[in-house]
Amino acid sequence: MRFDVLAQDSGSAARVGRLETTRAVIDTPVFMPVGTQATVKSQTPVEVAETGARLILANTYHLMLRPGSARVNEMGGVQRFMAWPHAMLTDSGGYQVFSLTGLRKIDDDAVTFRSHIDGSKHVLSPERSMEIQAQLGSDIAMVLDECPPGNGDRASVERAIDRTTRWAQRCLASPRAEGQARFGIVQGASFLDLRLNHLAELADLPFEGLALGGFSVGEPIEIMYGLVAEIGPKMPAQKPRYLMGVGKPTDLLRGIAAGIDMFDCVLPTRNARNGQALTWGGRVNMRQSKHQVSSEPLDAQCDCPVCRTYTRAYLRHLFMAKEMLGPRLLTQHNLHFYQALMRGARTAIAEQRYISWANAVEAKFVAEDEVDTAREE
Amino acid sequence: MRFDVLAQDSGSAARVGRLETTRAVIDTPVFMPVGTQATVKSQTPVEVAETGARLILANTYHLMLRPGSARVNEMGGVQRFMAWPHAMLTDSGGYQVFSLTGLRKIDDDAVTFRSHIDGSKHVLSPERSMEIQAQLGSDIAMVLDECPPGNGDRASVERAIDRTTRWAQRCLASPRAEGQARFGIVQGASFLDLRLNHLAELADLPFEGLALGGFSVGEPIEIMYGLVAEIGPKMPAQKPRYLMGVGKPTDLLRGIAAGIDMFDCVLPTRNARNGQALTWGGRVNMRQSKHQVSSEPLDAQCDCPVCRTYTRAYLRHLFMAKEMLGPRLLTQHNLHFYQALMRGARTAIAEQRYISWANAVEAKFVAEDEVDTAREE
Repeated sequence: MRFDVLAQDSGSAARVGRLETTRAVIDTPVFMPVGTQATVKSQTPVEVAETGARLILANTYHLMLRPGSARVNEMGGVQRFMAWPHAMLTDSGGYQVFSLTGLRKIDDDAVTFRSHIDGSKHVLSPERSMEIQAQLGSDIAMVLDECPPGNGDRASVERAIDRTTRWAQRCLASPRAEGQARFGIVQGASFLDLRLNHLAELADLPFEGLALGGFSVGEPIEIMYGLVAEIGPKMPAQKPRYLMGVGKPTDLLRGIAAGIDMFDCVLPTRNARNGQALTWGGRVNMRQSKHQVSSEPLDAQCDCPVCRTYTRAYLRHLFMAKEMLGPRLLTQHNLHFYQALMRGARTAIAEQRYISWANAVEAKFVAEDEVDTAREE
Repeated sequence: MRFDVLAQDSGSAARVGRLETTRAVIDTPVFMPVGTQATVKSQTPVEVAETGARLILANTYHLMLRPGSARVNEMGGVQRFMAWPHAMLTDSGGYQVFSLTGLRKIDDDAVTFRSHIDGSKHVLSPERSMEIQAQLGSDIAMVLDECPPGNGDRASVERAIDRTTRWAQRCLASPRAEGQARFGIVQGASFLDLRLNHLAELADLPFEGLALGGFSVGEPIEIMYGLVAEIGPKMPAQKPRYLMGVGKPTDLLRGIAAGIDMFDCVLPTRNARNGQALTWGGRVNMRQSKHQVSSEPLDAQCDCPVCRTYTRAYLRHLFMAKEMLGPRLLTQHNLHFYQALMRGARTAIAEQRYISWANAVEAKFVAEDEVDTAREE
């Protein structure tokens, strides 16, 4: 993997870069659509690529359970399995496993958990996570980390950090797929000093990139913005910086201002299935009756196939009639919007006007106070 | 509307024709995908057109209730509403209303029924059905008919036929959309003589086409084959002949042999959503474990985007993981298969080898003894 910073904003830490993996060249800042079960829900790989996306995310936890990583490997790896010809990042499975309250047990060696599908028992260790990700054959593998609860006390967060560092070292000592990059994950909940210490520890290890984990897990959004604004610029400048599981358009814009290069979130896809569109004019609830005879496109500023083809009245009808095409079309639009947002950010950074551009976009999304905490679909 | 018979098979009543409506030129025999609620479930109009389809069906009953035919009219008619640039046939709403057991009341004037959506009361008369279909703006409108139960006694079937004829005359006396063709519907359950009498009555009326209704409603399949084989060739040769709500690949092939030109059925789309594919090798249940590491395409003889792109292992995974993309892709394939089946039939008829071709295809579908009776999705 190769990463180059190509431009730096003068009024913020925002930067434009280029990430080259075995399979793709990716412009950063980049948003990765989430393909939990080796599919970006309702979309074909061709449609995902048409949005401009060249890097997507798949979930180790889900794929290890179904269809199983050995089986995916037998089918040529996750990209070939799902017919996605570009790059793939896999998470470590840790975040999902730690979300299985009551179904898991953790010690220094590994996490033992029961499958949400059939209750079967599984063990996920740092070595096993890397083995699974090697079998999946992703371009970028994430280390297994311990994600402490957002409201954890300082001592428990410190213990999670220590374990995450030890696990990171074990991940680095494990075999990987050919050409596979490995990213470390900085934890520390809302303790700035703990996060900076952890960052310093991980920065010394031979990772190709570093991520901020454990954000967007229920803490007030301003806390996250403040921490990311402090930590982002202190992350190694020559490596890609990844803010995991984030987020809303405003979250992305704030992250970019802090020098973050990579994002993923289920929001554009999950919200689409619930009838919520993200547009240059802000959020649109497709079920509202005001759309019922609207011959306007969903987003007049968008040139995606959905906005070029259908009226708001028709999209609303699909949701009211519970037709599968509704979630499908809104997902397609939302993914286009997120990629267009990233393109807009890259252009604004290159032209040294990032903050004024970002402020204008953010103004359309003022009413967003909830945080989407989901990391899978 | 214009219809020309272009070729006639020598060994059967099968024929090739060309149907021209206001919006499309359609080769017959034709299979019409079903777009109940102004969408062929899970597919875009572009995808439907890519299968070769130029004529699809929408349901008056569903659209009158949601979003309402006046609203569809305000949005430019059903084709413009759903962005389908080709031809559309609408049913009369009768079949669905007669399926609402306990929710409806019928007299000579009209059917009164309650909506399955909100329980609201509606009246569907022949005039109202034609008014709704005029508002929807379809290329072909069907008359409101009374569909007697498949097991009805002779007297009740005779009464339904008489009412259907009177209603057909009232439909013909009603206004229609510009260029809209009207088809009559022959009823008569499994009584051959009643059906032939009814056909004779309707043949004298100025319909642009005639349909056989009330088939595939639970009667043994061989009874249907026998009746269609008798009646089909006796239908006016210069008008298109439409066998409503039918059916399985074998049903289509038998209908074509009897001189039928038009078919519709939810089978390829509904079965797809249940994981069942129709292929040149017969039915394939996508959930079977034998597919789990199969790198074969769904149908090696099919050149649709699904068969060119994905393995059986991946398609199975999508169904096991309950991913929306599974039903979507299988629907796309099944619609391609049905259109390819019709193309194959047209070629075989033109080359005077229809029966031997149809027998070879039918041999792959021997185990089909159930009848799919659904007419909507």
